Amino acid sequence: MKRFHLNRRDLLRGAGVAGTGAVLATGGYTLLQQRDAALSSSVRDHSQETVPFYGPHQAGITTPAQDHLHFATFDLLSPTLSEIRGLMRIWTSAAASMCAGKSIGEGEFNLQSPPPDTGEAMEHGPSRLTITVGFGPTFFVKEGRDRFGLAKNRPPALIDIPALPGDALKPEQSGGDLCVQACADNPQVAFHAVRNLTRLARGLAVLRWSQLGFSRTATTSKGQATPRNLMGFKDGTANIKAEDANVVRQFVWASDADGPHWMAGGSYLVARRIRIHIESWDRDSLLDQEQTIGRHKLNGAPIGGHDEFAPLDLNAKDKDGNPLIPLQSHVRLARGDDTIKLLRRGYSFTDGMDRVTGELDAGLFFISYQRDPRTQFVPLQTRLGREDALNEYITHTGSALFACPPGMNEGEYFGQSLLQ
Amino acid sequence: MKRFHLNRRDLLRGAGVAGTGAVLATGGYTLLQQRDAALSSSVRDHSQETVPFYGPHQAGITTPAQDHLHFATFDLLSPTLSEIRGLMRIWTSAAASMCAGKSIGEGEFNLQSPPPDTGEAMEHGPSRLTITVGFGPTFFVKEGRDRFGLAKNRPPALIDIPALPGDALKPEQSGGDLCVQACADNPQVAFHAVRNLTRLARGLAVLRWSQLGFSRTATTSKGQATPRNLMGFKDGTANIKAEDANVVRQFVWASDADGPHWMAGGSYLVARRIRIHIESWDRDSLLDQEQTIGRHKLNGAPIGGHDEFAPLDLNAKDKDGNPLIPLQSHVRLARGDDTIKLLRRGYSFTDGMDRVTGELDAGLFFISYQRDPRTQFVPLQTRLGREDALNEYITHTGSALFACPPGMNEGEYFGQSLLQ
Repeated sequence: MKRFHLNRRDLLRGAGVAGTGAVLATGGYTLLQQRDAALSSSVRDHSQETVPFYGPHQAGITTPAQDHLHFATFDLLSPTLSEIRGLMRIWTSAAASMCAGKSIGEGEFNLQSPPPDTGEAMEHGPSRLTITVGFGPTFFVKEGRDRFGLAKNRPPALIDIPALPGDALKPEQSGGDLCVQACADNPQVAFHAVRNLTRLARGLAVLRWSQLGFSRTATTSKGQATPRNLMGFKDGTANIKAEDANVVRQFVWASDADGPHWMAGGSYLVARRIRIHIESWDRDSLLDQEQTIGRHKLNGAPIGGHDEFAPLDLNAKDKDGNPLIPLQSHVRLARGDDTIKLLRRGYSFTDGMDRVTGELDAGLFFISYQRDPRTQFVPLQTRLGREDALNEYITHTGSALFACPPGMNEGEYFGQSLLQ
Repeated sequence: MKRFHLNRRDLLRGAGVAGTGAVLATGGYTLLQQRDAALSSSVRDHSQETVPFYGPHQAGITTPAQDHLHFATFDLLSPTLSEIRGLMRIWTSAAASMCAGKSIGEGEFNLQSPPPDTGEAMEHGPSRLTITVGFGPTFFVKEGRDRFGLAKNRPPALIDIPALPGDALKPEQSGGDLCVQACADNPQVAFHAVRNLTRLARGLAVLRWSQLGFSRTATTSKGQATPRNLMGFKDGTANIKAEDANVVRQFVWASDADGPHWMAGGSYLVARRIRIHIESWDRDSLLDQEQTIGRHKLNGAPIGGHDEFAPLDLNAKDKDGNPLIPLQSHVRLARGDDTIKLLRRGYSFTDGMDRVTGELDAGLFFISYQRDPRTQFVPLQTRLGREDALNEYITHTGSALFACPPGMNEGEYFGQSLLQ
């Protein structure tokens, strides 16, 4: 029987000689170029960086947003609660390995069995992979049935999101009993994570839908440059930043007082698949685009401001006394009275051509984390859905809400506070 | 009227200060780590590198394969030949700008018009973008009609690919009058290229289908490490490398003697969307997987060999006198008598979940370049389609063939040798 070790980092090290030419070739970069390059989202070398898997909160929430996303939701077949615990133990073990840059089941392999890891992420390094797991409303109660005797533990904040103005939701892009958010700076690493967790769930849960995000549209750390969404505008300038501990505590993490106890230190994930009608947007004048968003396209400054981080002055008037930042502009309505904040963590997507319209099916896969969607996402999106000038160019085609439990210590598993 | 310049590189330079922290943060990398990192496909900083747009051949063929793909095909509406020339001039000008890391229409913008560039690639650098254009069989003759009086110029090699063993082609993922292959080390840059060329074609051509490739599966230069496809195997070990000038001349570029004259220096692009049934594959034993491919999974060595680049010894026998590399293994059939070679340039893809099977719709978007598909792709795929053990795990769901004309000098345009 043949035995060998699969260790992505060892492989890299062992094969180091082959890379020498590349190091010499890149040695000519000037400091300026390196500095410039750091502004682009895809160019810093994070391949060997890991994000700690264990901790009081799940990784992938306040973690500085990685470049790529593979998001998936699952429907449970008819496992017992004990089988779900088993699945979560297996997922935790696999996720911890992958996030450390190791293959699943690292150690002894044999030729007679399927490889415990599908292999396509070897040589790619951990690439800052994070894997975040959540429980949807239907995990607790489906078609009126308390599936696992856990209905009493369903958090009041884990609502069925009400119909919102402008929704055009498709069931096949919405909902799910469980979700997995895999983010990494390498798309193959993110793909590999979802694929392998799906494989490990065989017989217990099946994919409901999945979404690949090819470029981040949010900044979740002060060290990150603001990316542009597919409207060509900078997105995430005013997002919550991980460094603002008080804001994060106030708006992102559920507390023990919020209840239930098992969600203390967790967060609620709202996902919305937002189709952008880019062909209509692209025909719009620069003036209209800027009036719609409320910011300048080139530098991201609020209209009337001079740089991206200029304060958003909603009282500013033009020479005729009209609001500089239009009343229905996206930034004005998103800001409101500044009492509602979300941690946004979205990605651009394209799923090829829409066969009905002949247009690119592309847009923003919006992900937000919050302490309570009843007081954050829902009122915010209600306001935006009613009045936002942007609605002319977007349609929400998918929606889902998940309760992401707190983080783990070594030896614990995803959702243990709920399932134990 | 507000006027400003959109220059991606100037923007990067001007905003350099913000990146300083990142440079310092990465300064701690050891040489070993840098060397390791160079083996991973996504980690070298190519954001500021450009691939020359002009030259005797189109870029994107022998160019060292970039990390990301956005491929699209277009159906022409009913333009005149003169309008097609105009479109190709506009595409050429836009492509040259984008490949240089500049926005389209760089220069003066005004608020009253739609921006000449959609903007989402700003700050990302050129990222080694290449844009390669081809003409499909239906460009010349569609439904029996010589559309532009160019039927006589249709190359004999630009065949209608015959039905091949194991095909399960979908019309909506096949064919097209024109194609655009955009490759870059940043997915937003590749997306942006196709989106903007689509926009510029409005009224003359419409998208037929498009495909995003998230990770390269081929090595086209000796300086590149071999990536893994979604089967977890190294892919492209024996591919044609750009440095092998004689092989490239013999197998990639059409010559004047091949005819027609306008294709001299061009190449024929065969695209195949190959769905991998990864759930079946993942259940297969390591032994079966290796016997199916004919290589070892971990290090990519031919069965019986010790490293990836060990010669493929098709005569080697095991102790019982049976072929070490099975008769129906993929590498044996792909190698054949070693008289057929292709330049492969494929990418991994996933398009979410297949609603019918509940499995991930994922696989290999195979792209190959060759001098004549009649003597290269077609006989090779006929052999593979009949006998390849891999067929149990894959289905070809899309197919297309395009004649990619030679490259251009400044002032010329895509396909000028055909259209002028």
